Amino acid sequence: MPLAVWIEYLAVAACAMTAVLAAEGKGIDLFGVLVLALVTAVGGGTVRDLCLDAPMFWIEQPLYLWTALGAALATFILVRFVTLPARTLAVVDALGLALFGIVGTEKALAFGTPAIVAVVLGIVTGVAGGILRDVLRSEVPVVFRKDVELYATAVFAGALFFVLLRESLPSAKWHRWVSMALIVALRLAAMRWKWRLPGFRMHGR
Amino acid sequence: MPLAVWIEYLAVAACAMTAVLAAEGKGIDLFGVLVLALVTAVGGGTVRDLCLDAPMFWIEQPLYLWTALGAALATFILVRFVTLPARTLAVVDALGLALFGIVGTEKALAFGTPAIVAVVLGIVTGVAGGILRDVLRSEVPVVFRKDVELYATAVFAGALFFVLLRESLPSAKWHRWVSMALIVALRLAAMRWKWRLPGFRMHGR
Amino acid sequence: MPLAVWIEYLAVAACAMTAVLAAEGKGIDLFGVLVLALVTAVGGGTVRDLCLDAPMFWIEQPLYLWTALGAALATFILVRFVTLPARTLAVVDALGLALFGIVGTEKALAFGTPAIVAVVLGIVTGVAGGILRDVLRSEVPVVFRKDVELYATAVFAGALFFVLLRESLPSAKWHRWVSMALIVALRLAAMRWKWRLPGFRMHGR
Repeated sequence: MPLAVWIEYLAVAACAMTAVLAAEGKGIDLFGVLVLALVTAVGGGTVRDLCLDAPMFWIEQPLYLWTALGAALATFILVRFVTLPARTLAVVDALGLALFGIVGTEKALAFGTPAIVAVVLGIVTGVAGGILRDVLRSEVPVVFRKDVELYATAVFAGALFFVLLRESLPSAKWHRWVSMALIVALRLAAMRWKWRLPGFRMHGR
Repeated sequence: MPLAVWIEYLAVAACAMTAVLAAEGKGIDLFGVLVLALVTAVGGGTVRDLCLDAPMFWIEQPLYLWTALGAALATFILVRFVTLPARTLAVVDALGLALFGIVGTEKALAFGTPAIVAVVLGIVTGVAGGILRDVLRSEVPVVFRKDVELYATAVFAGALFFVLLRESLPSAKWHRWVSMALIVALRLAAMRWKWRLPGFRMHGR
Repeated sequence: MPLAVWIEYLAVAACAMTAVLAAEGKGIDLFGVLVLALVTAVGGGTVRDLCLDAPMFWIEQPLYLWTALGAALATFILVRFVTLPARTLAVVDALGLALFGIVGTEKALAFGTPAIVAVVLGIVTGVAGGILRDVLRSEVPVVFRKDVELYATAVFAGALFFVLLRESLPSAKWHRWVSMALIVALRLAAMRWKWRLPGFRMHGR
């Protein structure tokens, strides 16, 4: 398999693993854990494919389902005995965010969508899985919270950069790698130096 | 642009603006605000298009996205300094409800669906955006609450009236305008005189 | 109508009726009750059809909508005066779970999906309606809770059995009936003897 595909399965597994941890304190059983994991890992791409009227990527290639379910089951058992390395997972998650975001943008462009739609669908591919996970846990999505470091914004910047690069340098072959690197760099820097978006604030309150 | 299209963009902007206000008290940042606004403004039509297997209206015409995002960003900044005129927004929202409801019903009929499906999809187009917004805020949807004035019911009445008019007077050209007027009138009257639906009540509780 | 179709409408009505009861304590009005009922009754099949890019089953056959809405309206009125027989509803619900699960698996296979996808979509058809109902009520889905008896697991076992039976005995005609019986038996036994899945538990907490 090419490198990008390896990263993709690694990212699916990492998504599923972090989703399992999000089950903490919700009184959820194994089935709930597997659904949370599956929705987090493939939810973003699913929403994108529905919007594009593309065949579901996980129906075409069910190995994504096996990877997410296997990683979730292993994590469900593992966390009873050991504590997972949060730092490592966060780095793999940033890789996954970058890959999903750019793959999503690229797929939308391949379907002939305008640039703004491609950027929106790139962000959707990167973050909608986590949003659906939080909706299922009955929580306001983590990615919306003003006390959480730049996440969707990193995908936005990378996807926008990707679209602009393709416009201005159509013959180059490294668009996606540079854009992914930008997302990872932004996300890790945001975590390191606590870069956040401004929160909602209303006059007189 | 024809009048109906002007009203449609105005309604999208009004939806996005009220959605921003719904971020109050949820600890949400700018990204969360933009997602709430986008989902509220285009969510109903998106669910309708998914059910009809129609191409997403906002992929065909991305100006809807720009309008919703622009209105939301402007509102996000504005509400730090001024209080928005709630009354005006409520009237524009009623216009939007009427337009979305009838446009949705009409699109469903154009796809050859039976009358009951067209009415259901008209209601979906009118209210599903707000339902999705409230799901993302982790609240029971406002439109379900027994202490809120007729909202979905107004779309139901207008969409039903529209379908019946088309059946009985197929050659007339003003079906949609009369039906929209009915929705606006019902909604404003409901707000004025506090017309509500009966709430759920269980024997012995 | 053949027996399977009778059971299907009965199951849709039972789903809608139990969904109405779930409105208790949420401050919901008649519209909210009807949406909860509709989403519970047809939500699972809707998600399945979206994933398969199949035409919505309730657009092809709107009698499903009439059944769900009629049963919900009747229940809304009835529960003001009498207490519904919870036991009977639970048995009808188990029948519905079995039927939806196997019908969903079969439809996915008919669309040429791999076995794991068909099993996943069978489970989705059986339980996604209830999950959407609970998301709309702003609750963690009942089917995820560790203090609730096997539910999705029964569909998983039945759908897997169905897929294996079809592989190994392709000429037999009774696959679906045996698999449905397995789901009903598992679900009723789980309720009787309180069979549950292990809950999520984290090291050191």
